[in-house]
Amino acid sequence: MANSPTRWGILGAGNIAVDFCSCLSMMPDHEIVAVGARSKDRAEEFAEEYGIPKAYGSYEEAINDPDVDIVYISTIHIGHVELSLICINAGKAVLCEKPMALSLAGCQKVLDAAKEKNVFFAEGFWSRFFPAYQFIREQLESGALGEIHTVQVSFATPISTVERIRKRELGGGGLMDLGCYPVQAANLVFQGKPQSIHALGTLTEDTGVDSSAVITLKYPGNKFAMLHYDTRTSDGANSFVIRGTKGNLVIPDHFWCPDRVLTGDNQVKYFQLPTVEGKIHFDHSEGFCYEIQGIRESLLKGQIESPKISHKDSETISYILSEVQKQLGVSFDFP
Amino acid sequence: MANSPTRWGILGAGNIAVDFCSCLSMMPDHEIVAVGARSKDRAEEFAEEYGIPKAYGSYEEAINDPDVDIVYISTIHIGHVELSLICINAGKAVLCEKPMALSLAGCQKVLDAAKEKNVFFAEGFWSRFFPAYQFIREQLESGALGEIHTVQVSFATPISTVERIRKRELGGGGLMDLGCYPVQAANLVFQGKPQSIHALGTLTEDTGVDSSAVITLKYPGNKFAMLHYDTRTSDGANSFVIRGTKGNLVIPDHFWCPDRVLTGDNQVKYFQLPTVEGKIHFDHSEGFCYEIQGIRESLLKGQIESPKISHKDSETISYILSEVQKQLGVSFDFP
Repeated sequence: MANSPTRWGILGAGNIAVDFCSCLSMMPDHEIVAVGARSKDRAEEFAEEYGIPKAYGSYEEAINDPDVDIVYISTIHIGHVELSLICINAGKAVLCEKPMALSLAGCQKVLDAAKEKNVFFAEGFWSRFFPAYQFIREQLESGALGEIHTVQVSFATPISTVERIRKRELGGGGLMDLGCYPVQAANLVFQGKPQSIHALGTLTEDTGVDSSAVITLKYPGNKFAMLHYDTRTSDGANSFVIRGTKGNLVIPDHFWCPDRVLTGDNQVKYFQLPTVEGKIHFDHSEGFCYEIQGIRESLLKGQIESPKISHKDSETISYILSEVQKQLGVSFDFP
Repeated sequence: MANSPTRWGILGAGNIAVDFCSCLSMMPDHEIVAVGARSKDRAEEFAEEYGIPKAYGSYEEAINDPDVDIVYISTIHIGHVELSLICINAGKAVLCEKPMALSLAGCQKVLDAAKEKNVFFAEGFWSRFFPAYQFIREQLESGALGEIHTVQVSFATPISTVERIRKRELGGGGLMDLGCYPVQAANLVFQGKPQSIHALGTLTEDTGVDSSAVITLKYPGNKFAMLHYDTRTSDGANSFVIRGTKGNLVIPDHFWCPDRVLTGDNQVKYFQLPTVEGKIHFDHSEGFCYEIQGIRESLLKGQIESPKISHKDSETISYILSEVQKQLGVSFDFP
């Protein structure tokens, strides 16, 4: 088992899938055995590019391919719960792009199914697998920063005109695309549920999805997270700041897939990203290699969740996102 | 009048007064004619250092010195309202260090007196006089940044053990010392009163003053300010970020007395600070020169307030600070 490659089935053939497969292709312990897309042509084109033996014109066929060990769900948010459940019911391990659900109920349904069927499931918060995040964890656990009392995170990038962001029926809005990253950052540091959640934001006039919000989370022991996201403008300071009684860390732009951390003594700690030869659409997508390797380690250990992004983490993040949705006045027709 | 120097009386002989007078001393249109301190010895020592002709062992004597045109109040917060009123009633112009009052009632009392007596009064938010702030104003007014929708400011520096910060009876806590700067930054951009104020923070266990807070201000038209201050730790990102629909500005550390602004096109605009030969205790105190010159300009014009920090600005800032105090559960025995 430890010597066999991990055999992946890919759902979706968009830009994220491209970046993910560019990383997968260069990793010796991994194979891409099938790809499923809504269009058979697109699946075949994608399969050809990556030398994937099987291309399917439906997601279900790819999931049910007997050679597939684990499914990577790269489709848009609104299909995540349904596809995850199909995978789990077919006994296939799942790595599902964030957010895994548009509602807490949807999230719980998937996690319950994974537990019941004893099948691996991880929400694709790839940030958690970056060496920079491992360094942050070590700094937090060692007590080097003292007691952490404040976390501040901002993520602003002009994507409001992108169709899947603009449309409510596609699970649009900034919270589910950008805002979930600051929320996972707060969750990384403070872990459990916040005592209070306070969100204010703006909705688009025509489509009624959230274009920005400011979110304050209060955690037990007077700890605070100040979070912000904005789909309208780019940002001069897309950073993740962790403040403790003995020191602080700043994870500068792009904090969600970082290659560096600024430590309290004004030193910069660099984490060189892997070199990937295939196509890469998004900044730092080379970092998918870390997530891919982390998932394999869990599968080899027979885990049904990843210690980097546990089911409890996903549930807590989803709980916060649902409450923020409610306060902003956004709701979706999908779970 | 335009050719006569502005004749200053200085109240207090602490580090801030030193920095202020080091700047005053090098400015040809200004004279320091008197200094008043609680101790005559200290006043005389200070007077000798700056060649000030008259040293008084009380604030009142310095205020009432007939050669004094304008009084600079550099004493700790708790004396500000009382001293300002004495000055105004004596017909002397006032530059009073921030915060001008510990309560909105105290602030209004001073502003009402200045209006009634037709005497100049300015709260010493020196930030407003820096060329970098003038640049910010021009950028805001020109529309170059589009519609400003979000302001984010953080100010964290470890001063919690300093006596005047620790003790409630000295007007202690972080809001009045640090927090007022993020609030003035929000006020610079959005000006009028916010529609809602939401503050969460921490109080010191022994003295019951605020050591930190996170503050969300909502302004009309879905505009937000996310503010933060902390007296317990230093910061990796003491910055002031202004986001608009067409661009953003970042005023990096030290945003409250900046020598640079990062513009949206990733350019750095530098503003060289003046060179001052005397003692300087605090970073960028050379910038007092800007404030000093700005105040002189107002006096020469016969204004009773400064356009850089108007009475309405002071009142709005004080209104916000008072509401934050209430929400944090801090109160003072002084106005």
